[in-house]
Amino acid sequence: MKILAIDSSGLVATVALLEDEDLIAEYTVHYKKTHSQTLLPMLDQIKSMTELDLKTVDAIAVASGPGSFTGLRIGSATAKGLAQGLNKPVIEVPTLEGLAWQMYGCSALICPLMDARRDQVYTGIYAFVPARQSDDKTEKKAAPGDGVSQDYEMKCLMEGTCCLLPQVVRKLNEMGEAVVLLGDGAQVYREKLKETLTVPYTFAPAHRRLQSAAAVGALALRYAAQGKMVSCYEHKPEYFRLSQAERERQEALHHGT
Amino acid sequence: MKILAIDSSGLVATVALLEDEDLIAEYTVHYKKTHSQTLLPMLDQIKSMTELDLKTVDAIAVASGPGSFTGLRIGSATAKGLAQGLNKPVIEVPTLEGLAWQMYGCSALICPLMDARRDQVYTGIYAFVPARQSDDKTEKKAAPGDGVSQDYEMKCLMEGTCCLLPQVVRKLNEMGEAVVLLGDGAQVYREKLKETLTVPYTFAPAHRRLQSAAAVGALALRYAAQGKMVSCYEHKPEYFRLSQAERERQEALHHGT
Repeated sequence: MKILAIDSSGLVATVALLEDEDLIAEYTVHYKKTHSQTLLPMLDQIKSMTELDLKTVDAIAVASGPGSFTGLRIGSATAKGLAQGLNKPVIEVPTLEGLAWQMYGCSALICPLMDARRDQVYTGIYAFVPARQSDDKTEKKAAPGDGVSQDYEMKCLMEGTCCLLPQVVRKLNEMGEAVVLLGDGAQVYREKLKETLTVPYTFAPAHRRLQSAAAVGALALRYAAQGKMVSCYEHKPEYFRLSQAERERQEALHHGT
Repeated sequence: MKILAIDSSGLVATVALLEDEDLIAEYTVHYKKTHSQTLLPMLDQIKSMTELDLKTVDAIAVASGPGSFTGLRIGSATAKGLAQGLNKPVIEVPTLEGLAWQMYGCSALICPLMDARRDQVYTGIYAFVPARQSDDKTEKKAAPGDGVSQDYEMKCLMEGTCCLLPQVVRKLNEMGEAVVLLGDGAQVYREKLKETLTVPYTFAPAHRRLQSAAAVGALALRYAAQGKMVSCYEHKPEYFRLSQAERERQEALHHGT
């Protein structure tokens, strides 16, 4: 299965092409240009570098939110356009899951944090457990002498949400386990996190910190195997909250009554 | 610190630009073109996409071997040329460590396997341990209630080497722990690994399977902090064994005496 994956949910623009378990190409840029200047030229460069015939792509994977409103709309519009033109399905990968998938197999809890402005973060809490033992949380290590395949499954311990930073910090402190923090919010709130976390924490290193379309595509492969695909008409981004314009309109309407 | 990282040790060509803990750009291609057709054009595209002035780069990181002889020579020649032209140091990142660094924080052992032909593999065994407790192997989980930073350190449990596949399989079976397999050798010897491993194993997913210059660059940042840098004149790739031409010459000389 050949998947074209894109993520423009944050400041990073990232495009990847995967075929089954092979990453054929990935191009990621975290620079001050807007996604409308980067995303399609990057896709075009991958297409030419790998002599890709777009008709051979089986599905378009897209980071489906939450994230920057403009970024999500650019990503979704691109995915919808490609999917409609090619008559192929869309695989929606929640942005927080795509970020967490960066830390595949990690021994600590994973907490992606995306800066949502107004002191809020988009966040969730995830853990990787060997697939054979997904119901047994007490003993993660498998017994020796049984050469069986055991992939990691990513368990969601706190659903993706939009909340104030202290709310997710309190939840992590209650859980009492070591945690890896990633996403742009981990950088923005770095000092506040250091001051308030009472559990051991790590900030993900440079190569795992922000969005990667290869991670989105690799997770999309699993979703596709579970039949989790939608048509280009069904796909829409998950904003998690109202945009500033909508919020201001609602407030104006409220005050007007 | 701004680092330009390249890895052309295998079939993958990959270039990344990092500034401190930020990945500014990464471009990775795993396609049938030769590195001489891909590496410099990819670097050029990153340079133009991020408006990079090469003079601002502080060091060139390169996957220093083992790997394909031609690939290593292209990578090293590129790194040497850039480092000499810019008058900046080279950070040599052993290819197997760069691969293992892909699985940062993983709870299992990490075994990169690179196909060295002639039934041999370039391989090593690594483990990630929280930095605070690097000497305590019995208890990896930290106690709750101590909100301290704990990065992961990568410990080398078997030095990088060139050996027959059964030798590393025997070592892994003796160690008796779950292992994540990655590198092109994991794909080439997939069935043999399945048949002979007696420990639980996972093949790394698509986004972690092969070389990534972002991982090379992120590890290079740690090396640089430890002062592990060389001049362009000192740098040379680590082949781990003689090339086919050298081997055949030695055999001819031997039979001639």
